[in-house]
Amino acid sequence: MAYINENYNKLKAGYLFPEIARRVKAFTEANPDAAKRLIRCGIGDVTEALPEAVRSAMHKAVDEMGDRASFRGYGPEQGYDFLRNAVSENDFKARGIQIEADEIFISDGSKCDTGNILDIFGAGNKIAITDPVYPVYVDTNVMAGNTGDADENGAYAGLHYLKCTPANGFVPEIPSERVDLVYLCYPNNPTGAVATRAQLEAWVKYALANEAIILYDAAYEAFIRDPELPHSIFEIEGARDCAIEFRSFSKNGGFTGVRCGVVVIPKGLMGKKKDGTKQAIHPLWSRRHSTKFNGTAYIVQRGAEAIYSPEGKQQVTALIEHYMGNAALLVEACKKAGLSVYGGVNAPYVWVGCPSGLTSWQMFDKMLNEANVVITPGSGFGSAGEGYFRISAFNSRANVEEVCRRIAQL
Amino acid sequence: MAYINENYNKLKAGYLFPEIARRVKAFTEANPDAAKRLIRCGIGDVTEALPEAVRSAMHKAVDEMGDRASFRGYGPEQGYDFLRNAVSENDFKARGIQIEADEIFISDGSKCDTGNILDIFGAGNKIAITDPVYPVYVDTNVMAGNTGDADENGAYAGLHYLKCTPANGFVPEIPSERVDLVYLCYPNNPTGAVATRAQLEAWVKYALANEAIILYDAAYEAFIRDPELPHSIFEIEGARDCAIEFRSFSKNGGFTGVRCGVVVIPKGLMGKKKDGTKQAIHPLWSRRHSTKFNGTAYIVQRGAEAIYSPEGKQQVTALIEHYMGNAALLVEACKKAGLSVYGGVNAPYVWVGCPSGLTSWQMFDKMLNEANVVITPGSGFGSAGEGYFRISAFNSRANVEEVCRRIAQL
Repeated sequence: MAYINENYNKLKAGYLFPEIARRVKAFTEANPDAAKRLIRCGIGDVTEALPEAVRSAMHKAVDEMGDRASFRGYGPEQGYDFLRNAVSENDFKARGIQIEADEIFISDGSKCDTGNILDIFGAGNKIAITDPVYPVYVDTNVMAGNTGDADENGAYAGLHYLKCTPANGFVPEIPSERVDLVYLCYPNNPTGAVATRAQLEAWVKYALANEAIILYDAAYEAFIRDPELPHSIFEIEGARDCAIEFRSFSKNGGFTGVRCGVVVIPKGLMGKKKDGTKQAIHPLWSRRHSTKFNGTAYIVQRGAEAIYSPEGKQQVTALIEHYMGNAALLVEACKKAGLSVYGGVNAPYVWVGCPSGLTSWQMFDKMLNEANVVITPGSGFGSAGEGYFRISAFNSRANVEEVCRRIAQL
Repeated sequence: MAYINENYNKLKAGYLFPEIARRVKAFTEANPDAAKRLIRCGIGDVTEALPEAVRSAMHKAVDEMGDRASFRGYGPEQGYDFLRNAVSENDFKARGIQIEADEIFISDGSKCDTGNILDIFGAGNKIAITDPVYPVYVDTNVMAGNTGDADENGAYAGLHYLKCTPANGFVPEIPSERVDLVYLCYPNNPTGAVATRAQLEAWVKYALANEAIILYDAAYEAFIRDPELPHSIFEIEGARDCAIEFRSFSKNGGFTGVRCGVVVIPKGLMGKKKDGTKQAIHPLWSRRHSTKFNGTAYIVQRGAEAIYSPEGKQQVTALIEHYMGNAALLVEACKKAGLSVYGGVNAPYVWVGCPSGLTSWQMFDKMLNEANVVITPGSGFGSAGEGYFRISAFNSRANVEEVCRRIAQL
């Protein structure tokens, strides 16, 4: 009989979002009338239509598949050049950042990438993770055997937690000891915080000094409105020697159900072998991508390319404006209600302190039962999230205005 | 500095198909005129247009994404019910096999699935692999650390190789010792062999007696024409307790560039922990799918669903007829040329013995240089493939007829 990977048994029972779904289902079954006025601001999923430029490109690509002369079978595993070039030109070179097309890997989404990246790293790495954090970083390390068991607060032995609090603006202090891999995500999910250039410079300096690798999740960069804030870790000098960046079309182009992401690995980035000699990371990921992945759908890649067309850019800008307008309303409503509010200015998430004495899940239940609004309990993102909740700005304007009214009533 | 996964360094330099691409590129650059008449029968990639029913469904799905009322964001990671139900009904229940929709996991393709499945298994499993074999099974085991180094023939220490030869009809004998995981693929890539019901019954009996799990790759089942041959391991009594099946839309629906696959894990299938107690496999894969994957594109899943519509079924049947007509011509041409020929009857691959004295790569070079036809050298699939080559039937009829003429001339 085959041995299973017992690391999976260390995982806590519920991934956050299934537990939310369970409570919402129980509520709607018990309160069918109230359920009709339920508004979901929990999971960070986009709600508005896919941009016309994207749909148009996808229709064209579907038609191409109908003619054997333009039919596309297996594509290059690393992605089609047209999309790798578009990412390189628009997301990097247009901002003065030297990232070449062959340093860009196209995937079916950032969740896969941030999980799969651990395949190319070995055992024995000291891994730092912010708290609160996107649960996938933690859970995939547990599955890979990089942790011990969880304690009563859900913290795993062997992970180095970087506390994010109002005191540090939810950007963690530089650790005093050495770590090998650091997960950073800015604009942040869940806190909506954004790292300044100076803060990222300090992290890059630390990584270079300690020969650490920063795993930088830039999935929400499109929501940055302050021109001083960096959109990519590669805006920071030295980052090419110490960082991998994850990017996504989910939140700018509305691709949560279309599935396309990007990993950027500079060619000079090095890891080390057990004997201490250095080895390049780029060929390892390239080999993984070639062996365990077979490319992202051609149709999807054509849709992603259209995001960079003039019409696509306009349409994405309009989407971002819409969601950030929602965020501004939510921030205002929570402030008026006397709550402590963070984020929501350069990020689509508003991070709110619970009213005195309430835990995150108590606040979740209160919002569900009394306001019929689904939020996300902060403690689901880690123990430092206790006492907070997250409201997502991904919704229609009418729904957000109604949520604001209900917050005021509550 | 982060430790890398040094198992990657055990991998042989060239994955088979990149090496073929390299030689073809060198040839075309050196012989621009001959390059114009090059016909590619190497990589097993479909060539004909995507069925109309599929394109029509995808157009409709793209349009749905353009209206916020019908827009689809994050879908269920395990796949939409409409597709899981269609697979359960059409591929299983219609054949009298009890596989429920919630035992079916939708993915972005079988290459990912057959690689990723190792995530849920632990160290210490004895793993059996046929020789010759689809290289992904081997390479992903190397990457996962389930092997030692390769010997001079490319065989990895720690893997149990099951030789497939004309003597056993390319279906390996049941091992005399115990193994924990066995990869079987029928109709077979690369040999085109198909396992009979009696042969699969013997494998299931062995797996049940040894508490082994069969990883059954049924990607080519649509090419089976003999009504006596099983299309699924689950046609065999007892297989629900000892098998995982991988299925694909790549070769029936022509989805190599669209990306959609299926993993079937019966709920009762068990693995074991180090302490010897049993644990169900299904929840482990479900957790992996939820944590490291975010569902297959809605548009793609609607396309896959259309394969099961009446029009879709007719169009797929026509595609299969086309490719199998090609296979019949190739088999006939190779036989007329006096070569030993296998496969090509219930599979889209023709497996051919090289003319006396030639190695697989010598035959590859001869075909490339003298006939300007790209084939796949058998030794690329394992040492038992030495002395053979594979011809793919995935091509236009005109190209296949031309290949047949050139084989006759050669």
